[in-house]
Amino acid sequence: MSAELEVYQRQSFGQRLGLGRRVGLLVVDFVNGFNDPALFGGGNIGPAIERTVDLLDTCRRMGLPIAFTRIVFEADGSDHNLFVAKVPALGGLTESALPSQIVPQLRPRPGELVVRKRLPSAFFGTDLAAWFTAKGIDTLLIVGCTTSGCVRASVLDALCHGFRPIVVSDCVGDRALRPHDANLFDLGQKYADLMERDDAIKALVTHRREQVT
Amino acid sequence: MSAELEVYQRQSFGQRLGLGRRVGLLVVDFVNGFNDPALFGGGNIGPAIERTVDLLDTCRRMGLPIAFTRIVFEADGSDHNLFVAKVPALGGLTESALPSQIVPQLRPRPGELVVRKRLPSAFFGTDLAAWFTAKGIDTLLIVGCTTSGCVRASVLDALCHGFRPIVVSDCVGDRALRPHDANLFDLGQKYADLMERDDAIKALVTHRREQVT
Amino acid sequence: MSAELEVYQRQSFGQRLGLGRRVGLLVVDFVNGFNDPALFGGGNIGPAIERTVDLLDTCRRMGLPIAFTRIVFEADGSDHNLFVAKVPALGGLTESALPSQIVPQLRPRPGELVVRKRLPSAFFGTDLAAWFTAKGIDTLLIVGCTTSGCVRASVLDALCHGFRPIVVSDCVGDRALRPHDANLFDLGQKYADLMERDDAIKALVTHRREQVT
Amino acid sequence: MSAELEVYQRQSFGQRLGLGRRVGLLVVDFVNGFNDPALFGGGNIGPAIERTVDLLDTCRRMGLPIAFTRIVFEADGSDHNLFVAKVPALGGLTESALPSQIVPQLRPRPGELVVRKRLPSAFFGTDLAAWFTAKGIDTLLIVGCTTSGCVRASVLDALCHGFRPIVVSDCVGDRALRPHDANLFDLGQKYADLMERDDAIKALVTHRREQVT
Repeated sequence: MSAELEVYQRQSFGQRLGLGRRVGLLVVDFVNGFNDPALFGGGNIGPAIERTVDLLDTCRRMGLPIAFTRIVFEADGSDHNLFVAKVPALGGLTESALPSQIVPQLRPRPGELVVRKRLPSAFFGTDLAAWFTAKGIDTLLIVGCTTSGCVRASVLDALCHGFRPIVVSDCVGDRALRPHDANLFDLGQKYADLMERDDAIKALVTHRREQVT
Repeated sequence: MSAELEVYQRQSFGQRLGLGRRVGLLVVDFVNGFNDPALFGGGNIGPAIERTVDLLDTCRRMGLPIAFTRIVFEADGSDHNLFVAKVPALGGLTESALPSQIVPQLRPRPGELVVRKRLPSAFFGTDLAAWFTAKGIDTLLIVGCTTSGCVRASVLDALCHGFRPIVVSDCVGDRALRPHDANLFDLGQKYADLMERDDAIKALVTHRREQVT
Repeated sequence: MSAELEVYQRQSFGQRLGLGRRVGLLVVDFVNGFNDPALFGGGNIGPAIERTVDLLDTCRRMGLPIAFTRIVFEADGSDHNLFVAKVPALGGLTESALPSQIVPQLRPRPGELVVRKRLPSAFFGTDLAAWFTAKGIDTLLIVGCTTSGCVRASVLDALCHGFRPIVVSDCVGDRALRPHDANLFDLGQKYADLMERDDAIKALVTHRREQVT
Repeated sequence: MSAELEVYQRQSFGQRLGLGRRVGLLVVDFVNGFNDPALFGGGNIGPAIERTVDLLDTCRRMGLPIAFTRIVFEADGSDHNLFVAKVPALGGLTESALPSQIVPQLRPRPGELVVRKRLPSAFFGTDLAAWFTAKGIDTLLIVGCTTSGCVRASVLDALCHGFRPIVVSDCVGDRALRPHDANLFDLGQKYADLMERDDAIKALVTHRREQVT
């Protein structure tokens, strides 16, 4: 998108936010149903899940606050909203349904937050922002799927709530690659820093060292 | 995006929401600065503004609730946030600056709401949702710019707040056409109905007739 | 509070909001634990529950949208917040615990919404406002407990979200009567209309007749 | 309220939150109109304003983030909401009206945030929570008026957003003393720590010393 990039740069878009004082990790919708091309998956979601395993492990060893999201609807349809009206198959993601469970590779541990949500953003209609704020977090590493859907919505809301969002670009995935690429472009220009996983891990370690020194 | 479309259709995306009982109009960031390629404008924003004139006129004659948004920051920088950190030139959109004024063609009239905002979404950190809710609105026609920025954010939040969003596809514009197209695709598949202006006007008239009968 | 009242009236407080176009019912925290003086109950909560039975029945027969709230925390403490820090016993209200279940007299039926919350307001950190908005609701009858806690917080947020709040004054209760009375005073002066149950039922019937005619 | 207190203590209410890592100051609605008994003032609001002068000075010298609120409505009534319907005189608090200006003793300095709001809470429909979150704040000293109105609403929302609220009990005031007392009771039992100004200043100094050591 070189032509677009030139316009964006001229208009001052795409500055770097950098890391703040305290970092948390947000894992968006890495559930079985989004890892299954027959349901909501496909594209590069599987590899993004695999690459997240090491990042999650690093964050756990560093003791960072970690939150996961799942989409969960009631079986009786009482909480169905306009998002389900637009994408009816989401209504099958009920509390105990296999597709709504977090993938086994990334299973949450006690003390890690699991947020149930009924909308794209991890923050809308949830108390997630308050959970991170109470812990003094001002920076969020964000991974998950889909890049063009719940990740983008969560990254934007993270920015709006006052958290510097860092999208780990090879730990987010989408069912289709063109929306994935287009949304990474938007996110990097307007709302977030983009870092590959290995650079993010290095940045965390450096950041920790600076905090301690 | 025919390959993507096939995946989205198979996964149940892209259903139609239709109009609800009562319709409002939301005009996002059609201000001088976004109509000026030297600032934040370019692409197809100018034509989108021109095509909005008739739609606004129709909505006024029908007595629909109408809200406009402007981005406004304090001159002393006290309210600068992460969005300004990412796009520093936004800080120049102060209350009395020419670029932050709504374009003359669409000047708000007394009784129409003008929302000042400091973030992409018309709803985040504002009381706009309550304003429409108190009027019993359940459907929003949305026009403005940019498609890939404040329009998309506002459309998603409209859906989240319980308003059926209808993006008037030839009354939204962007500084660059590829992000414009990519975001219209996302919006139409996941969060909103897309209608061209003339169809939207027809739908309003039909809708009104059904309400009255 | 006659001296206070004189001040409030002189300053224009306490006007009537009246009913809007479409009414919903919100039942706040009528769960076993708040009906048990050994846990969070006492005072006039029991009688408020009993008087709500007929109101709920009326609303069901009229087909109004009905939402209930429960306070629910995770057993592992991962979602404990500042509210639990202030009132630690709330942490015992886990998903399957008897005290967190809605009282048998008011058991929700399929299609009625049950909102899980971790804060006083029924609206904060939940998608309840959107649920009512999507249904075109602009007026809420509010019952529940406690008057000085979750009811007051929910009534205020109802107003903020654009719903006219009507507190059914003999269907709200509190563990202690002085806070109950003091908060009814505040609510009636600043944020809501107060109606007794029988008047509320009459108003609903009259309102329906006017809508139909 | 000794009888009430016994009930609250038995049910585990009223624990202390204490200070977190980083403290901010929130000054709620100390504007001319609330310092004037002929408008919205009276009671102990005047003395609360006077006692806030030293606290504000201390916070400024310590470099804490400071935010003020004002209630501001449009002269054309376009943004009038249910709060104005309940208390019509609030509609006179327009941008340039003398009663909506912050009192001279506490005039904000450049870089301090001034939040315009149209509802009781400093946080509802504003981006204030994000402003404090971006600065890593997890604790808020709260002063202002009225105790039973905008202060209470702001304190509760501070808690909900993840900030430990500390109500400076002799720097909050109300037009009538019984609502003032009743609301301080509720706040101290459920949502906030209460400290007198001199103790708050001491706590800030001690807290700073511990941070530096």
